[in-house]
Amino acid sequence: MTAMEQMGARAKEAARKLAVAGSQKDVALEAIAQALVRDCDKILEANRIDLEQGEKNGLTAALLDRLALTEQRIQGMANGVRQVKALPDPIGQVLEGSVRPNGLSITKVRVPLGVIGIIYEARPNVTADAAALCLKSGNAVILRGGKEAIHSNTCIAQVMRDALAQTDIPVDSIQLVQDTTRQSSIDLMNLTDYLDVLIPRGGAGLIRAVVEQAHVPVIETGVGNCHVYVDKDADLDMAAEIIYNAKTSRPSVCNAIETILIHQDVAKQALPKIKKRLDEKQVQLRGCEKTRAILGDSVIPATQEDWSKEFLDYILAVKVVDSLDEALQHIARYSSGHSECIVTENYAAARAFTSQVDSAAVYVNASTRFTDGGEFGLGAEIGISTQKLHARGPMGINELTSMKFIIQGDGQIR
Amino acid sequence: MTAMEQMGARAKEAARKLAVAGSQKDVALEAIAQALVRDCDKILEANRIDLEQGEKNGLTAALLDRLALTEQRIQGMANGVRQVKALPDPIGQVLEGSVRPNGLSITKVRVPLGVIGIIYEARPNVTADAAALCLKSGNAVILRGGKEAIHSNTCIAQVMRDALAQTDIPVDSIQLVQDTTRQSSIDLMNLTDYLDVLIPRGGAGLIRAVVEQAHVPVIETGVGNCHVYVDKDADLDMAAEIIYNAKTSRPSVCNAIETILIHQDVAKQALPKIKKRLDEKQVQLRGCEKTRAILGDSVIPATQEDWSKEFLDYILAVKVVDSLDEALQHIARYSSGHSECIVTENYAAARAFTSQVDSAAVYVNASTRFTDGGEFGLGAEIGISTQKLHARGPMGINELTSMKFIIQGDGQIR
Repeated sequence: MTAMEQMGARAKEAARKLAVAGSQKDVALEAIAQALVRDCDKILEANRIDLEQGEKNGLTAALLDRLALTEQRIQGMANGVRQVKALPDPIGQVLEGSVRPNGLSITKVRVPLGVIGIIYEARPNVTADAAALCLKSGNAVILRGGKEAIHSNTCIAQVMRDALAQTDIPVDSIQLVQDTTRQSSIDLMNLTDYLDVLIPRGGAGLIRAVVEQAHVPVIETGVGNCHVYVDKDADLDMAAEIIYNAKTSRPSVCNAIETILIHQDVAKQALPKIKKRLDEKQVQLRGCEKTRAILGDSVIPATQEDWSKEFLDYILAVKVVDSLDEALQHIARYSSGHSECIVTENYAAARAFTSQVDSAAVYVNASTRFTDGGEFGLGAEIGISTQKLHARGPMGINELTSMKFIIQGDGQIR
Repeated sequence: MTAMEQMGARAKEAARKLAVAGSQKDVALEAIAQALVRDCDKILEANRIDLEQGEKNGLTAALLDRLALTEQRIQGMANGVRQVKALPDPIGQVLEGSVRPNGLSITKVRVPLGVIGIIYEARPNVTADAAALCLKSGNAVILRGGKEAIHSNTCIAQVMRDALAQTDIPVDSIQLVQDTTRQSSIDLMNLTDYLDVLIPRGGAGLIRAVVEQAHVPVIETGVGNCHVYVDKDADLDMAAEIIYNAKTSRPSVCNAIETILIHQDVAKQALPKIKKRLDEKQVQLRGCEKTRAILGDSVIPATQEDWSKEFLDYILAVKVVDSLDEALQHIARYSSGHSECIVTENYAAARAFTSQVDSAAVYVNASTRFTDGGEFGLGAEIGISTQKLHARGPMGINELTSMKFIIQGDGQIR
């Protein structure tokens, strides 16, 4: 057995006990939340080592900021764990059931997935967040964070494991992979005998690599090439506000928009209004020919690649379309299936858009920035799925579960 | 674009139209059912070529039987298509919804997966069954059958496509891969830009190969190392009947049992009873030492590997266990997670077994042979999932769907 397989075996054994744990899970989550606060100094000390090494290795300011912990951020992690604790326990929920003509009672109940792997990058808070969500949903977790945060992650994981040791929940419910070489990621992606699902959290490169290389089941998360379509019957002030919010409130996240499509009948009126608003944040526009004819040469010509790009920045691609149908075709071709919005006062257009756009979240007259577990009322999220299998859109604790059939009989044979 | 990618692109385009098709899907299914019966002679003629080549290539009698079509079997295929047609349309079903405090209405609705790939072996009836289930659930399908059945499959697929051409449903909703080399399977497993899920149907070797090699999402199906545990408080006559049924009614299928576990307190009484019943079908027993001490040397000593084996034959492994807990541990270690049964009159034992066994179907006092879409009331099944992601146990048309969130607002921004 390799070290990773041993980790897998320990996780599987822990998962067996976790699957039938009830309120002990909440006791454990409370113990974790308290330990994080109590051992705050220890965690900050470990984080300091990561930050020093990060500076030495020339990490960007943005990356260092993601890596940095403060007393307040650790308090935030503890609060996050308590929020997860407060959610209703999904395990054991009866999903459906019936009595068959032969008298068999069939009940479909919610059960944990088992062992979940998480591969993530620089944010050490993911270590606590992901562990809490997995624990609440009865799953053992194997965490594999980025090398930049290894000291922070190791310390946080140890604090959580020490907290578990004081409870009835197995310590190996939470394990962290110490080896941060590429090989350890590959080993995790191939841990088919032990891992029920692997969830990558991070940039497009990481996610692509996991989807392409993993042999365990994967949930693809977080790549968002999102669109707003301004219909010919749109309220143009509303359109400008939604576009401004969806692009600039936080451009680096997956639910921010990257392209807007404007119906030609309103383009002349709408585009200057939209540009004026976006100019407040110096958003760079990359437009089609028609856009440039209206807004002038300050708009950079959009290339073919711009339609596919997730800029994650103050950059927005703009295209004037002939019709709702052209907008639908553009979205079908270029969208990553995350979130799209139509701005319209037209009932038929709204209906066509919501039924024909094949994305996790389809909006009428609201900012795509709402695609988020908290905003959708899930309590907390482990990520946003952009695939269609198992989970789609914001994933809460229910999305970390499976089900089984329990069949009760009196000696029935077939 | 490779030929497979072109196929994928055509499927994706067809899927876009299929996703919003309503009752036209049922019209198309009726057309397919009628065409299968009308073109029966053509299909039988194509099947004859496969059978002749199969005989030349020395296929076993069992394989030739699976391959063979008759007028009755084709009628059965048509009836199957009509049964699928009669199921309620899952698409558009509202799964849940709420109004958020900010006034956004969020509705979660059922949508198709999109493009489904099916890799299967010798049975040509799968071509019609799988196509009907995918079509009803609004999915385009790419079928890749075994080379032994290529003439039959090609003819059946053509008959179905010709039928679609007379309807509003795109012809490319159903496509068959003509190339039956290994490469075409590999190409399908790597069609990440077009395939939403790949479902292998067939033997353990095929399924293992797909799970290990595919880069598209896969649903693992059909490997069943199933157990019956006879508790110390079992009705021993019931136990013998259930074991006899679960082993011998159809040993070649995945829901047949491969190992029985007997509590030591009742082993002396139960084992001769069980053996007597199994002797009627000359079932070969492979037992642990304690089993052999009771039943004698006619029982072959079980090897370590026997506990993991899916015999799919008149062979049964037998182990005497000290306790329910030992049975649970044995199942946790060796089961493939398909179906397990406890025979008991003890309430606590039944509860412990159903809550702790982590398999798709967990039975009390009934044969594992009931793990089947039809028996569970799903109408029809595309396979039995033994994984925990997305679907578990018998998969009907609901398991061929995904969901999306539709969010309606009045200009909300975040």
